[in-house]
Amino acid sequence: MQIIKEYVEENRQRFLHELFELLRFQSVSADPKYKDEVLKTADFVADKLKNSGANHVEVCPTEGYPIVYGEKIIDSSLPTVLVYGHYDVQPPDPIELWETPPFEPTLRDGKIYARGACDDKGQFYMHVKAFELMVHTNTLPCNIKFMIEGEEEVGSDNLGKFVAQNKERLKADVVLISDTSMISMENPSIETGLRGLAYMEVEVQGPIKDLHSGVYGGAVANPATILCQMIASLHDEHNHITIPGFYDGVINLSEEERKSLNDAPFDLEEYKKELSIDDVWGEAGYSTIERTGIRPTLEVNGIWGGYTGPGAKTVLPAKANAKISMRLVPGQDWRKISELFKNHFESIAPKSVKVKVIAHHGGTPYVTPTNSIAFKAAYKAIKDSFGKEPVPTRGGGSIPIVALFEEELGIKTVLMGFGLDSDSLHSPNEKYDVFNYYKGIETIPLFHKYFAEMSK
Amino acid sequence: MQIIKEYVEENRQRFLHELFELLRFQSVSADPKYKDEVLKTADFVADKLKNSGANHVEVCPTEGYPIVYGEKIIDSSLPTVLVYGHYDVQPPDPIELWETPPFEPTLRDGKIYARGACDDKGQFYMHVKAFELMVHTNTLPCNIKFMIEGEEEVGSDNLGKFVAQNKERLKADVVLISDTSMISMENPSIETGLRGLAYMEVEVQGPIKDLHSGVYGGAVANPATILCQMIASLHDEHNHITIPGFYDGVINLSEEERKSLNDAPFDLEEYKKELSIDDVWGEAGYSTIERTGIRPTLEVNGIWGGYTGPGAKTVLPAKANAKISMRLVPGQDWRKISELFKNHFESIAPKSVKVKVIAHHGGTPYVTPTNSIAFKAAYKAIKDSFGKEPVPTRGGGSIPIVALFEEELGIKTVLMGFGLDSDSLHSPNEKYDVFNYYKGIETIPLFHKYFAEMSK
Repeated sequence: MQIIKEYVEENRQRFLHELFELLRFQSVSADPKYKDEVLKTADFVADKLKNSGANHVEVCPTEGYPIVYGEKIIDSSLPTVLVYGHYDVQPPDPIELWETPPFEPTLRDGKIYARGACDDKGQFYMHVKAFELMVHTNTLPCNIKFMIEGEEEVGSDNLGKFVAQNKERLKADVVLISDTSMISMENPSIETGLRGLAYMEVEVQGPIKDLHSGVYGGAVANPATILCQMIASLHDEHNHITIPGFYDGVINLSEEERKSLNDAPFDLEEYKKELSIDDVWGEAGYSTIERTGIRPTLEVNGIWGGYTGPGAKTVLPAKANAKISMRLVPGQDWRKISELFKNHFESIAPKSVKVKVIAHHGGTPYVTPTNSIAFKAAYKAIKDSFGKEPVPTRGGGSIPIVALFEEELGIKTVLMGFGLDSDSLHSPNEKYDVFNYYKGIETIPLFHKYFAEMSK
Repeated sequence: MQIIKEYVEENRQRFLHELFELLRFQSVSADPKYKDEVLKTADFVADKLKNSGANHVEVCPTEGYPIVYGEKIIDSSLPTVLVYGHYDVQPPDPIELWETPPFEPTLRDGKIYARGACDDKGQFYMHVKAFELMVHTNTLPCNIKFMIEGEEEVGSDNLGKFVAQNKERLKADVVLISDTSMISMENPSIETGLRGLAYMEVEVQGPIKDLHSGVYGGAVANPATILCQMIASLHDEHNHITIPGFYDGVINLSEEERKSLNDAPFDLEEYKKELSIDDVWGEAGYSTIERTGIRPTLEVNGIWGGYTGPGAKTVLPAKANAKISMRLVPGQDWRKISELFKNHFESIAPKSVKVKVIAHHGGTPYVTPTNSIAFKAAYKAIKDSFGKEPVPTRGGGSIPIVALFEEELGIKTVLMGFGLDSDSLHSPNEKYDVFNYYKGIETIPLFHKYFAEMSK
């Protein structure tokens, strides 16, 4: 522990400086205009892995953005940890709400503000620096492999093929990921489940062109109105989702499991205050913790149609669109849910409009075992580092590839995240506490240590 | 008639050239970035009025865009016609759907394509050129006054004050406006009514910032979903509007009036084909002609919220907005309707969101008399010019100031429009037939002739 703290202390400034360099790359995978920046980011990550002590570093091309691979094999009889992360980030929109530019990392009150600060550059880079620490202090107790991809925010389309084609190379005993949150730094926790995802885009087409709302209004179906009606119908009055078959197969928790979940520290008043809302919302019969952890949901991520500029335009728009995504829980298959959504959405469209539904991407829900060596090692590492036992929680987010690793590589994942829900992931002013960044770098070597020891 | 045709023939090219000059000005009143262009347009219109023979031409400042005034008083004992028009235009959005640039007028198949080609530059400019014709051929049979404003597309906010302050100057026997449509060139018609308008903008605010839809989805009200639910609730299953009190006072037509209205030539299959829709839509119990003519409506003119860029962003947006306008019929007061909308919309908002409602502008519905000298003069002029008796129709659009003229100046309006519903007003690829433009210039002098004769 002492050796870890000393190394971090000596290299504080450089560790932060390197992260800032990484955050300056505008690696937005969703929007093709950032393509060059995404590619440069992959090269940067490869360089840093190399400098930190990895061998066989390679920027592996895919049909989309490349996957950065690197490894250090010290002894083939020792256990191997596969670290996964992603160097791509969410779009910075709405950009005008950022207090400082999203790609110019800025320190304020001990927090790093930048797109990707927490999700996931700040978090995966802790592993690169913890790895450097173990190499330079001669404390690396196991083999380590890195796989850092550039398409996580757009559905990891090409990762599956890569994993399938590189099973030997990726062989490991556990996947370690830091891309999730803790309850707080005072209440450390480990996520034991992730929701799946089915991301759809819909288009409702009315007349062939925008019309004058006076000349045609009232007689021609307005696709914006119809889209609203269709979206409204997707929840009933109890906020249950109305898509037929949507809940089929959902694995419900036992009363005991629900109770234990609801025992996690949670202050509803604080939650509402932080978000500046007067009331929470959600499926009848479930608590806020359950609504975000163990229940599937359906959210409108974006909606647009007609005139959205300043002032007034009396138009009956030709079409209206929405991006709608569903978070899924164990027992739901994202391909089936995407299909159910598509069929249902098409079926509820009135004859006066035409509807197009496309599936963007999806991901399978996942629950990690809490009785594995890896989970126990993570538990002990956090307990040592934070001086407090971590609470197991169920995360609301999705890392679609976790299920893939199990399928293809036959190994489990540990979600050792150091973010906070308040880090504004996917939002303007995303941040990551400098404290969490260093705390992560200190905790990770302990994980490797305990994992190697317990694996003996 | 011969003298008119000859003058138009001799000046064909120049008349078109001048209209093209006018159409090149980007006089979008809704968007402040076009301010200089709007102001230049006013100066251009003033110049043209002067050159065409008007006296006392003045660009009259208002708190918004100026009103261009000009007149020619030949004998105070003769009747006076007040011509109203507007030199401002709708925004060109969505600009990418224009086949040729909106502010570079282009001739294709005998049609002028440009923003404002029909609404209202092409139509009011016919009056300027018909006026020139009458002055140059010494056939002006009455006094004429022009009032061309620059804020019609944003609610004519400053016209009321101008009219109230210039009652003496604007004294006239009739207001003549070409800013409406005919059924077709083969079926000439005169609109005898206009719908009123109440244009609202709403904002639904959920959490204080955009959130990660995985971390918060299902537990925090999504303002886009809520906005959809609120908008959906504004129509019932018969497409009646649900705002309490909305229909109070609506003057219903007699069965006879409805029958006569439905006797106008109308081909439903042609209508659907032209718009490329499989079915029409609207209030149960009314025909398409009635739905756009004599019934009030509520339309979403624009809606936006969340991520609308390419690809996927799993965000729970902080807010969602919509522009919603209502067309009103005689018996409805737009100020009262705006108030009813605001109260209702605020009342249906769940506690989990905050709602803001603002009223953009409004206009009073209007029905013109068909037994006036002015209407008879218009009827005869069109009959002469088109060789066919025009059909009286009820227009779905709104020219809010028509009611104002009656209130402030005590005079009626004649709506002698030469547009077509298919002219794509407020839409991409707005057009105006060259045929209609010249036909209008030929018909207008006949109106003045008959109006002066019948007034004796």
